[in-house]
Amino acid sequence: MLAGGVGGARFVRGVREEVRRHRPGASVDVIVNTGDDWWLAGLRITPDLDSMLYTLSGQNDEVRGWGRVGESERVSAELQAYGVTPEWFTLGDLDLGTHIARTAWLRAGATPSEVIARLQERWELGVTLHPATDDEVDTHVVVADPGAPGTDENAEGERELHFQEWWTRHRASIPALRFHQHGLHRAIPSVGALDALLGADIVLIAPSNPVVSIGTIVSIPGMAQAITASPGTVVGVSPIIAGAAVRGMADACLQAIGVATDAAAVAQHYGARSRVRHAASGIRGLLDGWLVASEDAAAVPVVEEAGITARAVPLWMRDLDTAADLARDAIDLALELRSRP
Amino acid sequence: MLAGGVGGARFVRGVREEVRRHRPGASVDVIVNTGDDWWLAGLRITPDLDSMLYTLSGQNDEVRGWGRVGESERVSAELQAYGVTPEWFTLGDLDLGTHIARTAWLRAGATPSEVIARLQERWELGVTLHPATDDEVDTHVVVADPGAPGTDENAEGERELHFQEWWTRHRASIPALRFHQHGLHRAIPSVGALDALLGADIVLIAPSNPVVSIGTIVSIPGMAQAITASPGTVVGVSPIIAGAAVRGMADACLQAIGVATDAAAVAQHYGARSRVRHAASGIRGLLDGWLVASEDAAAVPVVEEAGITARAVPLWMRDLDTAADLARDAIDLALELRSRP
Repeated sequence: MLAGGVGGARFVRGVREEVRRHRPGASVDVIVNTGDDWWLAGLRITPDLDSMLYTLSGQNDEVRGWGRVGESERVSAELQAYGVTPEWFTLGDLDLGTHIARTAWLRAGATPSEVIARLQERWELGVTLHPATDDEVDTHVVVADPGAPGTDENAEGERELHFQEWWTRHRASIPALRFHQHGLHRAIPSVGALDALLGADIVLIAPSNPVVSIGTIVSIPGMAQAITASPGTVVGVSPIIAGAAVRGMADACLQAIGVATDAAAVAQHYGARSRVRHAASGIRGLLDGWLVASEDAAAVPVVEEAGITARAVPLWMRDLDTAADLARDAIDLALELRSRP
Repeated sequence: MLAGGVGGARFVRGVREEVRRHRPGASVDVIVNTGDDWWLAGLRITPDLDSMLYTLSGQNDEVRGWGRVGESERVSAELQAYGVTPEWFTLGDLDLGTHIARTAWLRAGATPSEVIARLQERWELGVTLHPATDDEVDTHVVVADPGAPGTDENAEGERELHFQEWWTRHRASIPALRFHQHGLHRAIPSVGALDALLGADIVLIAPSNPVVSIGTIVSIPGMAQAITASPGTVVGVSPIIAGAAVRGMADACLQAIGVATDAAAVAQHYGARSRVRHAASGIRGLLDGWLVASEDAAAVPVVEEAGITARAVPLWMRDLDTAADLARDAIDLALELRSRP
């Protein structure tokens, strides 16, 4: 599976449940977005990996929708009093335990893959988490700033924010001109991600943000090639229902890359999987199959016209059962496509 | 002032109070022991500087005797669950805010002196804190271990523990053969410590552990020379009352260096200040004056025989008033010695 944070975690939990119920013996590997990661107060914060860890271990706050249940913020208040963290980003106390452990291990020489492996030893997750890459490729957002001078990184009249500042502080309200992953050209996929893709029967793309979650994962040099080369059948789930993002602020991200907030448009953006690059764009297509919401049944023929098999199914994950049903629909479509001659 | 942690902080608070009451305009610099410092979970912990910071800012837990008031340990429980900290050392949540801020600034290139300056900006301490050194000279304890092979650092049948493990985990119950400060020969005093000593009218040595607090400070190459060269008059306060350490486990430390747990023996160990080295030991004497407890009045002539002016005064710091009275006695003795022709 390819997945981002909170929304991705719900789908992964559904897949885990479906596997437990109907496909015992199947193993699930999750390639998790690392583009939202950043350094704050000398600590390495990896929001999507942590959302996975907390949701799959049952430690997540279901009511608030993110972070640990029973969380407090005593340390964060201290950090703000010392002026070491900004007032717009608080860190939970329980969550900080994870960040401190991670950073200690990283400083001692462990890779991010080794760190998440150690962290998940604490609970029986039932799936294996992998960072998309062990390299630091933190997403930045380029926005207009009429007075800004040109720099090596940016043209005159533009400036860059870390993704977290744009997302958390500004709630994605400043129009993004484009996204910029520092160090992307030097990055490679993690070994766990490559192993999982190249040994998969089915590759599922979670209904996560198609730009800054899934888009960031597949932009890592070598990742799209590994998906193309995978023996698995690739089925994605639309993150857009009836023209609106299921959660988060995906529309602000899609707008920046010129893609409509539309279940069919996202499938077209991902493209039909093919062993060759698309001649025009140089982009490799990802999808064999695509699930849209029942509300978006009209998108099915549009998607199929792009060479992607599509189905309209119930897409809202209201609870574990609906998430498991969605997982079953995705797996069923993949198996159906695999059984074709 | 030269001082260790909790006991030192009480005396510093007394000096601050005495200065506020009777000597406005005087400034107080405190050279704080850094030998108890260590790295834990990737964070730099400086117990003595933090005890100073919390006591002088009124954030300390008076009942427990150490740490922050209203402390909790939620993060520490997480760190232990991840296996990143040992079960015998817990870190308070509020205290962790300080450690995270410190470590972030250190990682960004600040010196320990710059870090404590930034931390104390948060409160009006009324004194200036300086680490004894900006170098890492963490104290280790050599203990007998019949089975241990010889290493570069230790002889056969010996092993080393970090001071914190010996002190906190074993409560100093394993006899110490000796103390070993890694990197001591490369260390130099902090600029703040040197400036304070070389510009002082009075140098006070707090009733802190004479081995692992005061002993560690003065063992930093150049520190004893700076005390010898200081224009200030040096008065120390005995950490031993009636043959017992006022607090902590000073007796276990004194035993390791062959000094009796006795107010006179500690003064003799510090030695009479002189512009020349003691021919026999190579050690520079520190003291012009020495305060012993009223209970130890019999020690006065013994100390004076060693060339150190001694007084017997009430030494128990039960509250702010008794601490301020002790500070006044120390300052009065220094002024008396300064007025001598």
